[in-house]
Amino acid sequence: MMFKIPMKISDYLQIWNKLSAAEQHLLEDSAVLHTVKAGENVHDGTKECTGLLLVCDGQLRAFILSDEGREITLYRLLERDICLFSASCIITSIQFDITVTAEKDTSFWLIPTEIYKNLMSESVIISNYTNEIMAMRMSDVMWLMEQVMWKSFDKRLAGFLLEESALNDSEKLSITHETIANHLGTAREVVTRMLKYFQSEGLVTLSRGSIEIINKNMLNQLSDS
Amino acid sequence: MMFKIPMKISDYLQIWNKLSAAEQHLLEDSAVLHTVKAGENVHDGTKECTGLLLVCDGQLRAFILSDEGREITLYRLLERDICLFSASCIITSIQFDITVTAEKDTSFWLIPTEIYKNLMSESVIISNYTNEIMAMRMSDVMWLMEQVMWKSFDKRLAGFLLEESALNDSEKLSITHETIANHLGTAREVVTRMLKYFQSEGLVTLSRGSIEIINKNMLNQLSDS
Repeated sequence: MMFKIPMKISDYLQIWNKLSAAEQHLLEDSAVLHTVKAGENVHDGTKECTGLLLVCDGQLRAFILSDEGREITLYRLLERDICLFSASCIITSIQFDITVTAEKDTSFWLIPTEIYKNLMSESVIISNYTNEIMAMRMSDVMWLMEQVMWKSFDKRLAGFLLEESALNDSEKLSITHETIANHLGTAREVVTRMLKYFQSEGLVTLSRGSIEIINKNMLNQLSDS
Repeated sequence: MMFKIPMKISDYLQIWNKLSAAEQHLLEDSAVLHTVKAGENVHDGTKECTGLLLVCDGQLRAFILSDEGREITLYRLLERDICLFSASCIITSIQFDITVTAEKDTSFWLIPTEIYKNLMSESVIISNYTNEIMAMRMSDVMWLMEQVMWKSFDKRLAGFLLEESALNDSEKLSITHETIANHLGTAREVVTRMLKYFQSEGLVTLSRGSIEIINKNMLNQLSDS
């Protein structure tokens, strides 16, 4: 029989050592470890307060949805990342909704909104940590805004393929054109057309349900140009 | 001779009454009232830390610039609004630059970065207030992102004209097509073409250097559709 090492929230929350013993106990007692399969929905934008998500292992994707069902990825959450906007009612001025799904099998702690809200209102450590998290996510969104506004689609697609390759540690990506379109906020046809152009230029090889990167250097040059 | 009522920062900072006497004195002693003319630059994105701007009177515009000099407006700052990102070094994770200019003659308090940073690290009131400000600005940017991603240009332009009309309390807007293009992150030609279409549909009347709104209801319908 395998011995299973229990996962502790103390190993994952970056500010753990700066918290008081009482604060630590409160978090240990209230946070619940959840596991979800790849593809599962973790937070639905229409629900206000799922709670804060602290990723233990796996990969979550935060995105926004249009009324017509179009999507664009805002950021990814990996090990030790924390998602604030799945508990948007902790801060009155958060006036937008995000949706969070698992891209890989993922385990995460769910910190109840009320617990965190109380901690934040009393501890300057937790409040300033919250400032840093929000600034990080806002920086992601500002980067995305600049991409969408000023960068042509070929460069964004090149950057996305390289990022996917790094996240999965593989040159061969099992991803559909539809999924890429949902990450980048465009239509499937636009993705297919550009990928075919990339193939004709010798950057990638396309096959059913997968894309293989064959010239990483040129993709990098395109993405950075 | 006119008697000039001195403007006090205590009348403008929303959390004033929640601060300690020491904190209040520190802010009163360190914040400096500045006045700028319409068109003047207040914060240049390449400079990291101008300080926090607390608007007393007038109107500031915060925007981002592309490498090629294109612009898009992120938000406006009016009386009692505070700008955090002109002091981006107060929070390590702020990894983007904004530029701030005056759109009208404006007076504002400049709160020195170091003073605010120290207050924020010690006071849970100020730290949580900072969270609220950041959430507000992030909500503005998320709104803008949704507009840019999902809303057609005619609707965005209709919304912009109505907003300008409200800000200036006038149906007649003294604004060039170039300036509108810089607000909306597009090219002047795109604005001119759409305004001419609006004119042909009886929504506005165009003349040199100004745009007059003549059918507010239809602009509202277009903007909300």
